[in-house]
Amino acid sequence: MNKYTSDYLDTLTPYTSGEQPKDRSYIKLNTNESPYPPSDGVLTAIKEAADGDLRLYPDIKATKLKESVASYYSVNMDNVFAGNGSDEVLAYAFQAFFKKSRPIQLPDITYSFYPVYCRLFSIEYNIFPLTDTFEIDIDLIPDNNGGLIIANPNAPTGIYLDLDSIEKILQKNTESVVLIDEAYIDFGGQTCISLIDKYPNLLVVQTVSKSRALAGLRVGLAMGNSELIQAMEDVKNSFNAYPLDSLAIAGASAAFDDKENFEKNTQKIIETRERTAEKLKELSFFVVPSKTNFLMAQHKEYPAKDLYLKLKENGILIRYFDLPRINNFVRISIGTDEDMNMLTDTLETILNG
Amino acid sequence: MNKYTSDYLDTLTPYTSGEQPKDRSYIKLNTNESPYPPSDGVLTAIKEAADGDLRLYPDIKATKLKESVASYYSVNMDNVFAGNGSDEVLAYAFQAFFKKSRPIQLPDITYSFYPVYCRLFSIEYNIFPLTDTFEIDIDLIPDNNGGLIIANPNAPTGIYLDLDSIEKILQKNTESVVLIDEAYIDFGGQTCISLIDKYPNLLVVQTVSKSRALAGLRVGLAMGNSELIQAMEDVKNSFNAYPLDSLAIAGASAAFDDKENFEKNTQKIIETRERTAEKLKELSFFVVPSKTNFLMAQHKEYPAKDLYLKLKENGILIRYFDLPRINNFVRISIGTDEDMNMLTDTLETILNG
Repeated sequence: MNKYTSDYLDTLTPYTSGEQPKDRSYIKLNTNESPYPPSDGVLTAIKEAADGDLRLYPDIKATKLKESVASYYSVNMDNVFAGNGSDEVLAYAFQAFFKKSRPIQLPDITYSFYPVYCRLFSIEYNIFPLTDTFEIDIDLIPDNNGGLIIANPNAPTGIYLDLDSIEKILQKNTESVVLIDEAYIDFGGQTCISLIDKYPNLLVVQTVSKSRALAGLRVGLAMGNSELIQAMEDVKNSFNAYPLDSLAIAGASAAFDDKENFEKNTQKIIETRERTAEKLKELSFFVVPSKTNFLMAQHKEYPAKDLYLKLKENGILIRYFDLPRINNFVRISIGTDEDMNMLTDTLETILNG
Repeated sequence: MNKYTSDYLDTLTPYTSGEQPKDRSYIKLNTNESPYPPSDGVLTAIKEAADGDLRLYPDIKATKLKESVASYYSVNMDNVFAGNGSDEVLAYAFQAFFKKSRPIQLPDITYSFYPVYCRLFSIEYNIFPLTDTFEIDIDLIPDNNGGLIIANPNAPTGIYLDLDSIEKILQKNTESVVLIDEAYIDFGGQTCISLIDKYPNLLVVQTVSKSRALAGLRVGLAMGNSELIQAMEDVKNSFNAYPLDSLAIAGASAAFDDKENFEKNTQKIIETRERTAEKLKELSFFVVPSKTNFLMAQHKEYPAKDLYLKLKENGILIRYFDLPRINNFVRISIGTDEDMNMLTDTLETILNG
């Protein structure tokens, strides 16, 4: 960097988002967006909020959204934090809970934004390994840590930990915050929000970007004990008092109120995922069992990176991570049935070519 | 805080935003919002963006918005940074430029969020005094600093520094970033964006919350040398890759394209300000000369805090800051002519009662 920038800036390695190429139209299976649009009710709520009152600051407490979320999960409003996408919510949590004298613990394969926050905020972290099958072995999580972060289901593997396992982890980690990132929980997993009353150190992070089909709206949530939520509010109000605009508050609130559309679409995505997994197995892929809206898969012969490039050439974007242990896997978001048929047909052609 | 929070959390004193009481309807002259709604063109652009594509992540580069801003100010797109309100843009700038070995310099009266960022990011700062008439004396700005921040026009005083004075400051401060916060520049001031080519350490921050009547949309901007902008992007992408939702990008872009409505409304606000200032003087106020959409004023007898409380009782919200040097002033946002007539009529009753 140049002489004007902060001294630590050279140490940053910003997060790399899934590509958004504009050179042609692609079937986009690379950023785990929903293939189904938000409901008419959500779009109407947004349009109704697009009025002259946009001249005014938004509700600093995002009351309407917190009411919808609290009602949906049967918690109190002071158990709910709302921010600009789960990435921002995570950033606030890192600042609020993990600037401690002991390092936080991250699995070796997980959402790659976590270490980025650590570098941005000078937070020490330690990496513990997942098993050979990419699972969490509770005994491998170091004790006496400064915090623990688990994406459940995990990304980019898709592997899910059940509620009993989460509770065992909480019983073993009582002295620092255990953050469970549930970005993908709605595709067959069970949220651990029911445990927040019992474990004052549990913070559950969610997003409307995946199962609620509103990646374009930028809304993330955290649920936990009211003292944890207050700490998040203090960090937020020291950074940006109004990260949620009036339209996002209205739209995300409506999305939580609209259970029917949500359940129909998540169920459909789950069915498409299972069908696609079977088809990939027929095409000689090893497919990691997934409770998300994506599949991590490895072909028994064809290199993952080549597969990614070949599919891109054919107008289909998937995600390839050049990272240890998973650099021969690809991650494929679940699209519509039509998208996935196109994917598997194209794969068949590539593999037989 | 509790045992789970970061060690530094107790040192935070979050920014206090203007109150948003819901107990009754108020004439809101406390947060410098525009009294005029965004134009139909802006609202239409937002409504058109409220479609099924909200399932997709926003454009990570906010291209459409940067194009509009670049065209408006005749700069290149890589001279423009866009974030979630100017508060977030400022927070990124503090991280990108001011974590240095030498303290940054802030005037003793200025936007009260600046020291909040310093505490959040552990940035050392030094306070230099404004003159008795709340003006900047260039000779009082310490040399050899780690950065300099000037709100121009200043808040909450409203006092404006002309382009020549800004250039003199830049000539004296070449070794660290000079951040000019132009949140209120459009109400009679001249932006210093024309100087970014000449001074590679100049960062100009703006917002759509005031003159562009879109406080509810959360869009802020920074203009500067492309290397400074890239440093801001690196911090942003280490924090939250998508702080601007698709609706905000569409709406703010349309606001920059709509010069006519913008100029008409800012001109109207300027006229109302001047008329209100005269009226306040007639009511025995000392009124600080303002090039903003607010007036800072002190009555020759009536205590400022009592005035604030009395006006609130009468359904009018203004802002009172219990801070050294200005704790006998009130800050009054400029509303419609009708709002301001109501204000001055009510003041007349209070002062004569």
